Amino acid sequence: MKSKKVTFADIAAYTNFSKTTISRYFNNPDSLTLENQQKIADALVALDYKENKVGRILASGKTEFVGIIIPNLYMHYYAEMLNQILATYETYGYKFLVFAGNEKKDIERKYIEELLAYNIEGMIILSPTISSKELAAYDIPVVGIEREDRCICSVNTDNYMGGVQATSLLKKCGCDIFIHINAKLPDTVPAYGRVKGFTDICEEYQLPHERIFTELGNSYEDNREKMLGIEKMLKERYPDQKKGVFLSNDTHANVFLNILIGKYGRFPADYKIVGFDNSPISSEAAIPISTVGQQIPVIAREAMELLSVQMDERKKRRPVLLKEPIHRIVTPVLIRRGTA
Amino acid sequence: MKSKKVTFADIAAYTNFSKTTISRYFNNPDSLTLENQQKIADALVALDYKENKVGRILASGKTEFVGIIIPNLYMHYYAEMLNQILATYETYGYKFLVFAGNEKKDIERKYIEELLAYNIEGMIILSPTISSKELAAYDIPVVGIEREDRCICSVNTDNYMGGVQATSLLKKCGCDIFIHINAKLPDTVPAYGRVKGFTDICEEYQLPHERIFTELGNSYEDNREKMLGIEKMLKERYPDQKKGVFLSNDTHANVFLNILIGKYGRFPADYKIVGFDNSPISSEAAIPISTVGQQIPVIAREAMELLSVQMDERKKRRPVLLKEPIHRIVTPVLIRRGTA
Repeated sequence: MKSKKVTFADIAAYTNFSKTTISRYFNNPDSLTLENQQKIADALVALDYKENKVGRILASGKTEFVGIIIPNLYMHYYAEMLNQILATYETYGYKFLVFAGNEKKDIERKYIEELLAYNIEGMIILSPTISSKELAAYDIPVVGIEREDRCICSVNTDNYMGGVQATSLLKKCGCDIFIHINAKLPDTVPAYGRVKGFTDICEEYQLPHERIFTELGNSYEDNREKMLGIEKMLKERYPDQKKGVFLSNDTHANVFLNILIGKYGRFPADYKIVGFDNSPISSEAAIPISTVGQQIPVIAREAMELLSVQMDERKKRRPVLLKEPIHRIVTPVLIRRGTA
Repeated sequence: MKSKKVTFADIAAYTNFSKTTISRYFNNPDSLTLENQQKIADALVALDYKENKVGRILASGKTEFVGIIIPNLYMHYYAEMLNQILATYETYGYKFLVFAGNEKKDIERKYIEELLAYNIEGMIILSPTISSKELAAYDIPVVGIEREDRCICSVNTDNYMGGVQATSLLKKCGCDIFIHINAKLPDTVPAYGRVKGFTDICEEYQLPHERIFTELGNSYEDNREKMLGIEKMLKERYPDQKKGVFLSNDTHANVFLNILIGKYGRFPADYKIVGFDNSPISSEAAIPISTVGQQIPVIAREAMELLSVQMDERKKRRPVLLKEPIHRIVTPVLIRRGTA
């Protein structure tokens, strides 16, 4: 059997303070003397008081809840980013309501509206589906990560720098022809910087280059099928040249590497490969893959910092809201391994 | 500028119903006639009423929040399980407060206590740190997945069947010596069934076998270091025998495979390998790895079903609580690929 809940009235009766004083103890303890704070604290122990945060939410309007919308947890990049965001609980105390949208825009929207009804204080959005304009209109602090971010604050990897790093490494390896394989990206998403970094370095140093923009599909088998065709084409088009291939992520780099090993029995001397992300697959591959590492713990921490500053501001009596969204950039780290 | 919030009093004034009737509409709509329900519904639209769920929580004590404690999101198994649990939002409507405990027992405990203060309705626990006895004492519905589960409900893969499937496959491949590599597991965790399944099949068919129980470490480099020693030992001890190796997960199976390919230039004919989990790495490996696949979507769905039945029961006026925890078992699926 459960014991009856201890109320503010019970605490007031026990301590001979007014209910207002008890309420103050919970919502603004420094307005009481230390001595009185201690008296109430002792009473809570004596009465076996269990804090009911829902009551506090109703009083303060603040929930310490943050919503997170991610596209999925299948991709290691998203899983590790979520891991790192969740780890900020120890620093900031915010609890995270998590939703994997799987590109279902309407369900994401419904979910966000539900969260708003629960008075969440802010959102971190990795999912690309809902425009930043629509997100900004929700009128709570929002930080985007690696997505279109015109109207919201964001933290992104310096994708342009990543493209520069990858291409420079292939140049240092003495490649003759430079290839970049990527999806067809709009230039509004941060990852487009990888394409631009590659292109700028190739043009600056007059390096012969080719950009292959194609959808590689969502499964290993689809990736492999597409990539088999690309490798065949590269081999035919550049038979005696040293081919430097910069792929948009490590998953695709690994597929390409496995095709080469399967076809030639080893990693052939006329290929160099650089991936992106520093996913586990890059170090677990048959030959460890050189890659542009995203600093996921730094990005997660910066995102939470940026969000918490805004959430704190809203708790003030006269909050000063941001006039313009803030965009932070985190430098990637080139990691040389066995493929370049 | 925000418009003033519409209150029950406003709705009552608009509809000429009492505030009690309005409250009933939200908390027990079937106590009103359909006609009156419609009148109130129309009023909500006319007044542009925004539901304040926090108020409802306070009235009903029900939050539609479920806490999830996972060890980490670095391991694909946990990330994909979380992905599938989150996807049940579309079926059940529960929102998930997620925490990655990273084996910090005290912080997990603090987190759970915070969640209880917010009136979460139930918990799904994948983290092994807190005993099922302690979890059961929290007195809310709890479902465990692949962890010690003596005092709580649980959904687990049939690990014993998985061990049987893997060993039977190696037997079918005509192996001479059977090896199982695993961590030192207590027999209270479900994964111990893999060891038992392996051992029983070997003993039943009098197959020569060896079990290697060792900590392989938490990084690819540590895994590789340990596994190099194991491969060397196996080669020396069983030089001319066909070695069937059943590893406790696909990550370790991939490390072992890469060592063989690195050492012999190909997957040698005197080895067969079976992993566990059907993680992405098993299909992305240089040679796709045969594995015992866990049915993660089924496990996630069963866990949520088991939890929601208990949460629903608690909403009844006279809930009948479970006398004994329920344990559900999901059959694994053997997936044959290139290594066995």
